[in-house]
Amino acid sequence: MATDMTLIWFSGSPPCWRVMIALEEKNLQGYNQKLLDFLKGEHKSQEVLDINPRGQLPAFKHGNNILNESYAACLYLEEQFKSQGTRLIPMAAPEQALTYQRMFEGENALRDVFPEGERHDSSLKRHREALTAELKLWEGYLEKLGAGSYLAGKNFTLADVVVFPCIAYKNYPRLAGYYGLLKERPSVKTSWPKNWLETPQAEDKLKDI
Amino acid sequence: MATDMTLIWFSGSPPCWRVMIALEEKNLQGYNQKLLDFLKGEHKSQEVLDINPRGQLPAFKHGNNILNESYAACLYLEEQFKSQGTRLIPMAAPEQALTYQRMFEGENALRDVFPEGERHDSSLKRHREALTAELKLWEGYLEKLGAGSYLAGKNFTLADVVVFPCIAYKNYPRLAGYYGLLKERPSVKTSWPKNWLETPQAEDKLKDI
Repeated sequence: MATDMTLIWFSGSPPCWRVMIALEEKNLQGYNQKLLDFLKGEHKSQEVLDINPRGQLPAFKHGNNILNESYAACLYLEEQFKSQGTRLIPMAAPEQALTYQRMFEGENALRDVFPEGERHDSSLKRHREALTAELKLWEGYLEKLGAGSYLAGKNFTLADVVVFPCIAYKNYPRLAGYYGLLKERPSVKTSWPKNWLETPQAEDKLKDI
Repeated sequence: MATDMTLIWFSGSPPCWRVMIALEEKNLQGYNQKLLDFLKGEHKSQEVLDINPRGQLPAFKHGNNILNESYAACLYLEEQFKSQGTRLIPMAAPEQALTYQRMFEGENALRDVFPEGERHDSSLKRHREALTAELKLWEGYLEKLGAGSYLAGKNFTLADVVVFPCIAYKNYPRLAGYYGLLKERPSVKTSWPKNWLETPQAEDKLKDI
C-alpha cells in the first residue's frame, strides 16, 4: 500500500490522469488522494501551494519528494519501482528510443495544437489544421506498427501512459483501434475521469476532428 | 568516438544545445553533425524530413534509433550510457525527484511564457509578467540550495542540461551566479551557440527582464 504517497488531482485533467495510470501500472494502489474542483478554484488553496507554488494540479508527493509535473512523476515512479508492476521504459535500445521519442512528441506536438487559454474562434481554424496533420502522423505510426500495437510497439509503455489521455477520444480508424485496446486495460479503466463518462468531451470545440 | 550518431542542428536553438551538452557530458564526442541555416529553411529538406517528419531540429540518430525531441534524446543518452561520463540522473530518490521535477518545470513553465510565434507586442505585457514571476521562482530555488548549487543540488544533472539553455542569460542575482558556474563547464563552453557569442540575444524582446 502506497500510504507514503499523496496525489491531489482534478477529474478530466490529462496530466492528473497520467500519474494515476502510472500509479496503477506500478501496483501503487492505496495512495492518499484528494479530488479538487477546478471551477471552485480549489487548486489555489494553501494546501496545494505548499506542494506546488504555481497552484496547478497534479500535486504529488512521495514522502518528502515532490513531483508536480506529470512526466516527472511518471519517470520517477518507473525509476524508483522499476521491478514492480509493468516495466514502462523498455531496456532494449530500439524500443526505449521509440518510447522516449513518442512520449515527447506527444507532449510537444499535441500541446502546440491545444494551447491553453487560446481557444478563441479566431485561432480555431489554425488549431484545426494543425491537429488534423498531427493526428494523421499518429495514425501513420499505428498503421506502421500493425494492429494491436501500443504507441512504441508490442508492449504498453510510458508513451501510452502520457499520450493516451490526450489522443484517446479522437475518431480516426487506427486511433479508434488503439482506444479499444486501452479502454479495457485495468489501469486506464480504474482511473477514467468520471466527468468524462457523464459528459464526454462536452467542452471540446475540436472534438469532431 | 560516437561515429554511429548523427545530429542535425541549428546554432542558437535551446533544444539543439541540450542534446549537444548531453553528448559532451556522456563523453560522446566525434559524432557526425550538420549545422543548418534556419533562415534559409534548410530544415524542410528531404534529409531532415526523413528523420523528423515535422521538419524540426534537432534531428538525431543513434544507429537506426531516432530521437528528435531534445528531452527524449537526453534521457536516452543517459540511460544507454549510464556509467559513461557524468551521471545525469541521480540514483538517490530525493535528488532524483528534484532533477525530474526541475527538468519538466523548465519545459512547461518557461515554454508557457515563450510561446513560439506569439511574440506580438499585444501579448508582450502578459509574457513579461509571467516571465518575471517564473524567474523569481527559479531565483528562490537557487537561493534555497545555496551558493555554488546546480538546479537540483550539489551535482550537475539533466535538469541543468535542459534548463540552462533557456534561462542562462537572465540578469537575476542567483541566476547570474548559476550562469557563472556553468559557463566555464567544458560541455557548455564547447557547445555554446556561435551566433550568440557574436550577437547575444539580439532578437529577444524580453531580454531586459
